[in-house]
Amino acid sequence: MKLGTLRGPGRDGTLIVVHEDGQAYTPAGATWPTLQAALDDWERAEPALRKLSEALKQGTVQAQPLDVSKLHAPLPRAYEWVDGSAYINHIVLVRKARGAEPPETLRTDPLVYQGGSGVLLGPTDDIPLRDEQWGLDFEAEVCAILGDTPMGTTALEAERHIRLLCLANDVTLRNLIPNELAKGFGFFCSKPATAFSPFAITPDELGDVFKDGRIHLRLRSTYNGELAGDPEAGPEMHFSFFDLIAHLTKTRSYTAGTILGSGTVSNADRARGVSCLAERRMIETLDDGKPTTPFMRVGDTIAIEMLDAAGRSLFGRIEQKVVKA
Amino acid sequence: MKLGTLRGPGRDGTLIVVHEDGQAYTPAGATWPTLQAALDDWERAEPALRKLSEALKQGTVQAQPLDVSKLHAPLPRAYEWVDGSAYINHIVLVRKARGAEPPETLRTDPLVYQGGSGVLLGPTDDIPLRDEQWGLDFEAEVCAILGDTPMGTTALEAERHIRLLCLANDVTLRNLIPNELAKGFGFFCSKPATAFSPFAITPDELGDVFKDGRIHLRLRSTYNGELAGDPEAGPEMHFSFFDLIAHLTKTRSYTAGTILGSGTVSNADRARGVSCLAERRMIETLDDGKPTTPFMRVGDTIAIEMLDAAGRSLFGRIEQKVVKA
Repeated sequence: MKLGTLRGPGRDGTLIVVHEDGQAYTPAGATWPTLQAALDDWERAEPALRKLSEALKQGTVQAQPLDVSKLHAPLPRAYEWVDGSAYINHIVLVRKARGAEPPETLRTDPLVYQGGSGVLLGPTDDIPLRDEQWGLDFEAEVCAILGDTPMGTTALEAERHIRLLCLANDVTLRNLIPNELAKGFGFFCSKPATAFSPFAITPDELGDVFKDGRIHLRLRSTYNGELAGDPEAGPEMHFSFFDLIAHLTKTRSYTAGTILGSGTVSNADRARGVSCLAERRMIETLDDGKPTTPFMRVGDTIAIEMLDAAGRSLFGRIEQKVVKA
Repeated sequence: MKLGTLRGPGRDGTLIVVHEDGQAYTPAGATWPTLQAALDDWERAEPALRKLSEALKQGTVQAQPLDVSKLHAPLPRAYEWVDGSAYINHIVLVRKARGAEPPETLRTDPLVYQGGSGVLLGPTDDIPLRDEQWGLDFEAEVCAILGDTPMGTTALEAERHIRLLCLANDVTLRNLIPNELAKGFGFFCSKPATAFSPFAITPDELGDVFKDGRIHLRLRSTYNGELAGDPEAGPEMHFSFFDLIAHLTKTRSYTAGTILGSGTVSNADRARGVSCLAERRMIETLDDGKPTTPFMRVGDTIAIEMLDAAGRSLFGRIEQKVVKA
């Protein structure tokens, strides 16, 4: 089942059920007007929405043509946005880039940060930038949207709490990070609003490419019209979504609609390219002594999507442009 | 105007308008069934709720007796919980306690962290604790609840975005902090669910004791029935709520209902006591070479409130007990 959120009339938009081809939709209806409402009441909402999804496939419900530019993020605002950093290659490269050591517990204790979740960007929303000197970067990620998840959930119990999967562009201001982390409280101003893919899909849509809490497909990032990278999102995700959920719930519970990110997808194989510019700049530094790729500038574009074996875009395409704010 | 949230029927509870004596209430009604709904539509909601508040005072609307134990947090779940650390004395003492230096930019660049906001505790909710070794501590704070606040808001423009004020107990697991901060991503597991006061009140309720973005009253913390501290919340709040808002909005915008905390209220004058045990333990270490006060244990209680000049409890009383989870 593929879900999306049309903009308006309210702040949380209108929940729609989307045809598997991503070209047509039908509104979810008044009982679950928004994705948050459906997640709050998932046991009842899920079967009803699946019926609509099936009717859409069968052509027994009226379908409307889908204009992706009318879509907001699946959750235009969420109660939590918790972002991991589960790809070891990314951590090692990005820390090198800022002259920092990877933490000693790199492979045993997941890195996660709490991001802002009150204002999220839709898949085609511009990225507003006040100052190019802040070093704007994209970060292509895969995400899980959780149902209610209690404190003390183990990795073995975690799968049942994953309601939906989607993609994110975790926009980052690289040049604000060193001073911010030096203060000891983690990221804040260096992490502006995050953008999400047009569609959030149930894990069963992925069949056996969602396994062990990882999505075993390549995540494609296209920067200014050229492929920046298409790393495999599966094998090098050191901590799976299940592991991350076990970590998160050590000391607290989560409400339905919490979004959990994987961190920047990254492969050790350089042929797979990058999912953020910081990695490319570090590779340039290792090879040539200094970075040559600048960070993003006003007018730059970034597209992020994930194709299945048949070449279909599973989550739709994040497609954003940087604009002067 | 004094607002609160009764538990149920939904996750976000039921918005009530509370008599200034805190003893009686009337439901806000179906147009704004929850505080989030009112904040989303504040220009219309505020005058209507003020009329109800006035009617409650005049006795022209039916009042119901208020049982504080039936109250949830004013926002049972919020889209963001952003917590500052605006009292310099607290930063200096707590960093000493963990052998860390205060940041170089202590007095020029505010410290804020992004907290979890999807599961918040009501004023009389138990504090669930899985392991006493984690070093549970309370932190008494004052908070502002914001309306929509755009990117680039200056300190001079900030006041208009403050809708309500309340108190918080920013529960902290001290012994999880050092390893967590060593990873470089800030607090996460060390900050479990935060609790909020029974009432959120409009700034005008405070008259001239809310000025320059600070609340000029004492915040009383009572630990296991004994006064732990009653520091002045005003003069030593180095960064005011206005300053904090200017900092937050450097790179992004905030949706209505964002909660902004002051950080642990703390005075250099030792006679004013403490608003958290970490400070007391540091003072013991400075005086006697080692801390003698343990962190909170199962069965311990903490109460937090703020009295006005007439001795009335402005926000009601946070009153929690630690229980084994």
